[in-house]
Amino acid sequence: MDPARVPPDLRLAATLFETLRRDSLDPPGLTRDAYGRGEEKAHETCRAAAKDAGLLVSTDFAGNSYFTLPGADRGAKWLMMGSHLDTVKHGGNYDGAAGVLAGLAVASGLRRAGVVPRRDIVVMATRAEETVWFPFSFPSSKAALGIMPEGVIDSVRRADTGRSFAEHMKELGYDPAAIRNGKRHLDPARILGWIEPHIEQGPELIERDRACAVVSAISGGFRFRECQISGEYAHVGGAPRRVRKDCVAAIADIVHAMNAAWAEMEAQGHFLLVTFGVVSTDPSMHAWSKVPGKLRFTLDVRGVDEDVIEVMRRRFADIIAEAEQRHGVAISLGPDTGPQMARMDGALCHALHDAARLRAIPVHEMPSGGGHDALAFHYAGVPAAMLFIRNQNGSHNPNEAMEFEDFAQAARILTTVAATI
Amino acid sequence: MDPARVPPDLRLAATLFETLRRDSLDPPGLTRDAYGRGEEKAHETCRAAAKDAGLLVSTDFAGNSYFTLPGADRGAKWLMMGSHLDTVKHGGNYDGAAGVLAGLAVASGLRRAGVVPRRDIVVMATRAEETVWFPFSFPSSKAALGIMPEGVIDSVRRADTGRSFAEHMKELGYDPAAIRNGKRHLDPARILGWIEPHIEQGPELIERDRACAVVSAISGGFRFRECQISGEYAHVGGAPRRVRKDCVAAIADIVHAMNAAWAEMEAQGHFLLVTFGVVSTDPSMHAWSKVPGKLRFTLDVRGVDEDVIEVMRRRFADIIAEAEQRHGVAISLGPDTGPQMARMDGALCHALHDAARLRAIPVHEMPSGGGHDALAFHYAGVPAAMLFIRNQNGSHNPNEAMEFEDFAQAARILTTVAATI
Repeated sequence: MDPARVPPDLRLAATLFETLRRDSLDPPGLTRDAYGRGEEKAHETCRAAAKDAGLLVSTDFAGNSYFTLPGADRGAKWLMMGSHLDTVKHGGNYDGAAGVLAGLAVASGLRRAGVVPRRDIVVMATRAEETVWFPFSFPSSKAALGIMPEGVIDSVRRADTGRSFAEHMKELGYDPAAIRNGKRHLDPARILGWIEPHIEQGPELIERDRACAVVSAISGGFRFRECQISGEYAHVGGAPRRVRKDCVAAIADIVHAMNAAWAEMEAQGHFLLVTFGVVSTDPSMHAWSKVPGKLRFTLDVRGVDEDVIEVMRRRFADIIAEAEQRHGVAISLGPDTGPQMARMDGALCHALHDAARLRAIPVHEMPSGGGHDALAFHYAGVPAAMLFIRNQNGSHNPNEAMEFEDFAQAARILTTVAATI
Repeated sequence: MDPARVPPDLRLAATLFETLRRDSLDPPGLTRDAYGRGEEKAHETCRAAAKDAGLLVSTDFAGNSYFTLPGADRGAKWLMMGSHLDTVKHGGNYDGAAGVLAGLAVASGLRRAGVVPRRDIVVMATRAEETVWFPFSFPSSKAALGIMPEGVIDSVRRADTGRSFAEHMKELGYDPAAIRNGKRHLDPARILGWIEPHIEQGPELIERDRACAVVSAISGGFRFRECQISGEYAHVGGAPRRVRKDCVAAIADIVHAMNAAWAEMEAQGHFLLVTFGVVSTDPSMHAWSKVPGKLRFTLDVRGVDEDVIEVMRRRFADIIAEAEQRHGVAISLGPDTGPQMARMDGALCHALHDAARLRAIPVHEMPSGGGHDALAFHYAGVPAAMLFIRNQNGSHNPNEAMEFEDFAQAARILTTVAATI
């Protein structure tokens, strides 16, 4: 059989989706808590299945699982694939897991067909990717790559348990001391590339009528999580408009102007996402009868074009200054914690497109609004790419709905890449 | 001495301001808690001082204090004056108390000068006017007038203690059962009018360089305290603008449009106050990383022209409908708890203007943005008027700063009214 046309092991994937679902039921939806019982059980399930499928199974100090199909030249750089196995609380079965199961379907499919790829195909299942648990991005892939900032595993705590990464890792038998000591499990120089299959979190593939998309870039931009507007509380009946320092009037102008700038950029064809996720007058002081004197808000602006981001950054500064002046308020933004935009690796993207053409699967190309473990690999200097799979109803909710046939198309494309790269 | 030119007893007022201040110190500022020890102590202080000044002192079932200078014809309708003695937490010494002390300065001044007015001058000190304590407007004046809605004294609880009006009244030795049984202490038919001196809560008298203002009307309008916007939470990176149901984008448009309508009305010369005091995404769900799916807000719109209020009401309905359509959100407003606008009594306003002219005190005329006990008298069918006294730094804060000479001017005007009406 032509190695490039080997079928992925879809039976294995279907069985695993069902097992993961059953094991993590938490109505409504599913919960696989990061560095907790839910996620750990999913890793155990995948390890057992990978072992049964004849793949080499290993684990690193941070609890990442690796499922390896050895290549003809074990000294050649590996091709890695995978994603994470945790979910948000009451999430769906596909965000994260689809990427791991696609990798397993590829590796097991090649093995069942007796195809020995040129290089090791290493499927990796990461952890704690959903920041609702630990408010830190891509901890386990960063730990594996040795790019975890010092102190994080002891200082960052899980929102619900209040315990640190280190405490959670230790409880599951992993080795936080290795991370503390700056060890790395993966050497970027040994990796040809990382390909992360992942459900699309938006509606674009549905609108475009495509099963999959090659991701061109992962968005970056600016992110202010601790903005404060300080005005002046005043008696609602005693403060005429001319003397007010009204925080709500100020934020309304800011949001209104930023959304107008966003619409303008979109009309010019630019990809951009502008989100004020938190806007809140101070609950300890606000009242219907007071002009609001304090307000906090968050702003996340992301795109895939540095110039566009820069335009928005300057526009935001102007809008803030104008609001301060017009409303007599002071606005502090706090630190910018926005990620750097990351263009996906050209050679890997080409390989994905070529494989899709060979399989006669029409694919779309689009940016990723959300961040993914692929960013950690990109930051570590590993060529990274992503393949989006069509999904209904968005992600991070119980209604995630990926058609299995769309998943199969992605697995076919990836099998071709793994067999030929 | 010409009765119309009798000096008010300013020494009494000055002493009382100092005693009240000393007794209610609670840095920063002062606290006289409604139906609590702070307010009760202020009533005791005023009762003792009024008794020493030779006025008749009495108390009603709701704890209101009355200080009466008997008139020549005790069967004639009374002229009443006064205000409340409670403050907000960490408030100032003048909001409320200035009105009671002005009344006492008038009554004691007339008595010391040996002037017997035609009719009884009845100074009343009310209670619990500041709704930060009990979220119900003008309870003690309404109770005295027999217009307290059924159930309120048992159902409305003090925000900090959690105990009802009735419990607080009973603890201080008053008689909630009388209110429960629908008794009234004041017969509107026996009252010629109610004049409430009160510090201005805004900056208009400073801007106009006047010590006092005759209040033309107390504002009314619409007030929605339980507005909800329901959109859809979505992953910030996965939801392009075209599919978002963003509550913050919706409220920004609403506030922006209402403030624009307000500015337009002001430019046409109309008095209006538009306040969104509370705007808050849902703290149990919001995050910088989510398109916000729920938001609550409050809106208070007040003016002194029913037509202008009506225009704003229709404008608001249009703005809400437009926001619902543009942003795909659902908006519920809850009940309208706005007060009716109240025009002040023409004859009493004339009497105040005439007295000011006689005393050669230039006065301003202006509406009141805030509500006052005068509204309860107006609702009960008693002619009501107000006299504002210039005040720095607004009210409800430790920095209230009324010049004593401005207070003296108000007391002079009121003495003339009391002596001649």
